[in-house]
Amino acid sequence: MSAHAPLSSPIAHGGRLDAARRAFPHAPEPWIDLSTGINPNPYLLPVIAPEAWMRLPDEAAFANLDVAARAAYRAPQDSAIVAGAGAQAFIQLLPRVFPAHRVGVLGFTYAEHGACWAANGAKVETVATIEALMGFDVAVIVNPNNPDGRILLPRDLGPLAQEMTRKGGLLVIDESFMDFTPEHSATSLALLEGVVVLRSFGKAYGLAGVRLGFALCAPARAAILRAALGPWAVSGPALAIGAEALADVRWRAAAAAGCAAEAERLDAALARAGFELLGGASLFRLVRHGKAQHWFLRLCEKGVLVRDFPERPIWLRFGLPGSEAAWARLNAALETG
Amino acid sequence: MSAHAPLSSPIAHGGRLDAARRAFPHAPEPWIDLSTGINPNPYLLPVIAPEAWMRLPDEAAFANLDVAARAAYRAPQDSAIVAGAGAQAFIQLLPRVFPAHRVGVLGFTYAEHGACWAANGAKVETVATIEALMGFDVAVIVNPNNPDGRILLPRDLGPLAQEMTRKGGLLVIDESFMDFTPEHSATSLALLEGVVVLRSFGKAYGLAGVRLGFALCAPARAAILRAALGPWAVSGPALAIGAEALADVRWRAAAAAGCAAEAERLDAALARAGFELLGGASLFRLVRHGKAQHWFLRLCEKGVLVRDFPERPIWLRFGLPGSEAAWARLNAALETG
Repeated sequence: MSAHAPLSSPIAHGGRLDAARRAFPHAPEPWIDLSTGINPNPYLLPVIAPEAWMRLPDEAAFANLDVAARAAYRAPQDSAIVAGAGAQAFIQLLPRVFPAHRVGVLGFTYAEHGACWAANGAKVETVATIEALMGFDVAVIVNPNNPDGRILLPRDLGPLAQEMTRKGGLLVIDESFMDFTPEHSATSLALLEGVVVLRSFGKAYGLAGVRLGFALCAPARAAILRAALGPWAVSGPALAIGAEALADVRWRAAAAAGCAAEAERLDAALARAGFELLGGASLFRLVRHGKAQHWFLRLCEKGVLVRDFPERPIWLRFGLPGSEAAWARLNAALETG
Repeated sequence: MSAHAPLSSPIAHGGRLDAARRAFPHAPEPWIDLSTGINPNPYLLPVIAPEAWMRLPDEAAFANLDVAARAAYRAPQDSAIVAGAGAQAFIQLLPRVFPAHRVGVLGFTYAEHGACWAANGAKVETVATIEALMGFDVAVIVNPNNPDGRILLPRDLGPLAQEMTRKGGLLVIDESFMDFTPEHSATSLALLEGVVVLRSFGKAYGLAGVRLGFALCAPARAAILRAALGPWAVSGPALAIGAEALADVRWRAAAAAGCAAEAERLDAALARAGFELLGGASLFRLVRHGKAQHWFLRLCEKGVLVRDFPERPIWLRFGLPGSEAAWARLNAALETG
């Protein structure tokens, strides 16, 4: 197990391919990185005008993105949408601009929310039900949840959203993995004063390096977020790519279907290898196995990186392979397990 | 003057080309935008690997940029360097992570510093001398200064840096326009606990849309900034472009010489038109004219946008034209003034 140590960090993120490569120097190249929930088949990059690189992003570029994002995310007319450098930028920012004493997180979930609120002085508790979130100043729900894919419907979230609005609190709904199940999105709640809905561009569009994400919320809260981000918080290329990709309804539908088919194929392959499916969203699957840690290391030896959970040693999360070459490597590794 | 109004904003930034176009719909196209201090001849974009767009930026990508930036900015061995999405990202962040009561800004200068400290509750005063900054919790110096190009030498800044370190205060030295006069840089002071030096990538390299900037400071302060920025605060393409460009010593020397020659040519053209040179850095020149507001509007009518200063109505700032086509337009506009 000592070979596993370098992969750990205070918050073990997916994508730690460098560390895996160092820990398993004899693994076959190229590594197959299934440790993230990023679409392995990205949106085809549009031609980027030289001005997008050269000039400071102007109001027109932000306005174009705003129009495309509002439509893609079905933003209510009276809500505002704020663009930033990834959903993570808002996870970092929210505790600073809306400081709170008591924060409740619906867990087990993505660790950055709780960590960022705690780093800004809040007392953070992980709770198991929506009802248990009612008493907090700030409630955080990742939906669909990462890593287990649990989905709450807008009608499930409504009472908590109303209560937070009534008492001047805040409900953060992190919809980073909602793009391919838009029928479950709670952006309709973003016009309430006590709600912020986060969206990620890079995961569904397979362009995580672009750094683009959004906060949907009431206009007054949006103005505070915009002031804190400053005038040029998104790069020119990100604005151009986001505006084109988010307006491409046909691509999104095809990508959703493609990822759903990949996920089914992944479920079958993992079941054949003896894993029990716990859940998942369209871009990752969570499985359980009594020898999950053993599997994690065996997969690394075969140059296949998945996500393990030190807090849940019998869990593994698999991203989508995305190509026949990656499938061949994964299947071979699963068969020799 | 009513046509001028749409160009104003709480902080009038350069680059407001959209607003100028709307205000002067009959001006010839394309507009010549001299309203910024951005190098009009950008670094040639390298080929960007697909992975830089697709994956979350990893530690190796940040480390590569770190090495190039340390060398380019001559960072002292015991200092740290933090990458962010532009110098502006740090201007927004510093008041949040290092809150202060009394902030002194050496003025007249770039307005964002004072505005961001004030937005976070500080009492901000503009002062005229370094000595007057000694009594504040935080002191801000833009060096070379924008817009007048005033340069303070490291030995001028040393006593203030020492005093801020001694009393637990902070001296912010914004070197956004220092790239082409590295002999005057004060990054040597960045190992002091009471100093943060900011650098901008986009201005000298003509790639402002990339969003890349740096803070050089002592390691303890750097750790706080990194934690506040979060794990992926710079895009994959920005990391790749910055690492290559900052390591290109030959390009930087050629660009410095080219911009110096452009600036001399600009000084001569402006003098011929009756402007008095007040100062400037290598990427812009500040001039005075009794009819500066009249000149601003006349230039707009000719499709040439420069920077005016509502607080200093007899000043104008000109960026570098950068091409013979732009020179022809500027010269024609100046001759008919």
